[in-house]
Amino acid sequence: MSEPRHGSLRVVGLGPGPAHWLTPEAERTLAAATDIVGYHSYVARLVRGAGQTLHASDNGDELLRAQSALELAATGAHVAVVSGGDPGVFAMAAAVFEAIELGPLAWRALDVRVLPGVTAMLAAAARLGAPLGNDFCALNLSDNLKPWSIIEKRLALAAEADFVIALYNPASRARPEQIERAFALLRRARSASTVVVFARAVGRADEQVRVTTLGDADPGSADMQTLVIIGASTTRALERSDGEHWVYSPRSLRALP
Amino acid sequence: MSEPRHGSLRVVGLGPGPAHWLTPEAERTLAAATDIVGYHSYVARLVRGAGQTLHASDNGDELLRAQSALELAATGAHVAVVSGGDPGVFAMAAAVFEAIELGPLAWRALDVRVLPGVTAMLAAAARLGAPLGNDFCALNLSDNLKPWSIIEKRLALAAEADFVIALYNPASRARPEQIERAFALLRRARSASTVVVFARAVGRADEQVRVTTLGDADPGSADMQTLVIIGASTTRALERSDGEHWVYSPRSLRALP
Repeated sequence: MSEPRHGSLRVVGLGPGPAHWLTPEAERTLAAATDIVGYHSYVARLVRGAGQTLHASDNGDELLRAQSALELAATGAHVAVVSGGDPGVFAMAAAVFEAIELGPLAWRALDVRVLPGVTAMLAAAARLGAPLGNDFCALNLSDNLKPWSIIEKRLALAAEADFVIALYNPASRARPEQIERAFALLRRARSASTVVVFARAVGRADEQVRVTTLGDADPGSADMQTLVIIGASTTRALERSDGEHWVYSPRSLRALP
Repeated sequence: MSEPRHGSLRVVGLGPGPAHWLTPEAERTLAAATDIVGYHSYVARLVRGAGQTLHASDNGDELLRAQSALELAATGAHVAVVSGGDPGVFAMAAAVFEAIELGPLAWRALDVRVLPGVTAMLAAAARLGAPLGNDFCALNLSDNLKPWSIIEKRLALAAEADFVIALYNPASRARPEQIERAFALLRRARSASTVVVFARAVGRADEQVRVTTLGDADPGSADMQTLVIIGASTTRALERSDGEHWVYSPRSLRALP
């Protein structure tokens, strides 16, 4: 393994999709990178700069991708590892540090930084109003890397705490049943009138947003592009003049009139 | 009350501070606004454009501020209500919708949108590594608008769920004792070796970041500019070659070697 030669690694959040949600810091860093590493659907959003190499991968193994990015940086490349949303929320940043901990000691001398971005739940919340306006939690519903029993325990405790709950990665073709099981659990713990939001691909051309209730929701309509928000007991759906709804969680727990 | 006359209201997240974390959407919207409304410390970050009126307030009452912004928009102004970080996380967006619900029906016809931003916990997490890489919750420690008993209950359940916990508004001159009580509770619930981060003013000139443990932490060092992160049982502090630490929460709950 060669010694680090002034390479660098930046873990870059691309935001939910549109250019107007990409931070100037992320944009500058992408332009300056010699190598861009990422899952193919994120790399596909980018325009290759002169002299820049794009390393798009269709392998879902984030740890392997992080390792190859670190190897590039260790040979002197300026590497940008890209993630959708914010790279620190259920995305590539944790994989990079895990790879560093498991890798050669020389990697701990590398110039590694994470650049924050707008994560999916913030974009979805903004689109709807302010559902995250009171205490909330964010749960990754995928059990690829943790046992389902832990997910159920966390859901039950989050419901008991009356947190607003943002569910990332609610379902995929490989595991359609988990969002159904999560809703079954939540329906035992919370009122049927609890406000529920399905926010798919917010900010992109195929955006779809639906406001419903825990009693009426069809969990099967969520896919991997969907961010699901389960309201707290205080979360409100407020009808607009056009018949659509804003959703918000009041800052105060005092009852509104 | 006059009818809406094609005014608009945008609730704009300024991010944690530096311009490189302000989204292009937020920047454009601020430039196009006729009126900018906000708490004085946020308005002070902005440069007034030609023909633009800045309404800086030192009143902490967010609901009153939201109401005056809505009144302006209802008379035809293009109003930007500014918040630090993301406006949907313990900030102005929820106050705006609460004001709409409590206000005249005509306000429900107003063109109101929320523009997301990089919230403090994402900036702090990025600065440190990836402490929010696994399931997490965000709690507002201020009991101005909710009883302390609810905060304690949520902290206890979050600890039991083994969430990473991000604490907003941990302390102020008016209530220095709450962060001490929160730490006392967390010390009973979690191991003394739990990783703890105090991240103050991340991205600004007076940034201060400290990595410690639940056993060693001095909760009294947190102020209103500080974001406190309490790690989960799996959160790790990884020593870099320069003696500093990265902090990250592995995606997997499988034990690392």
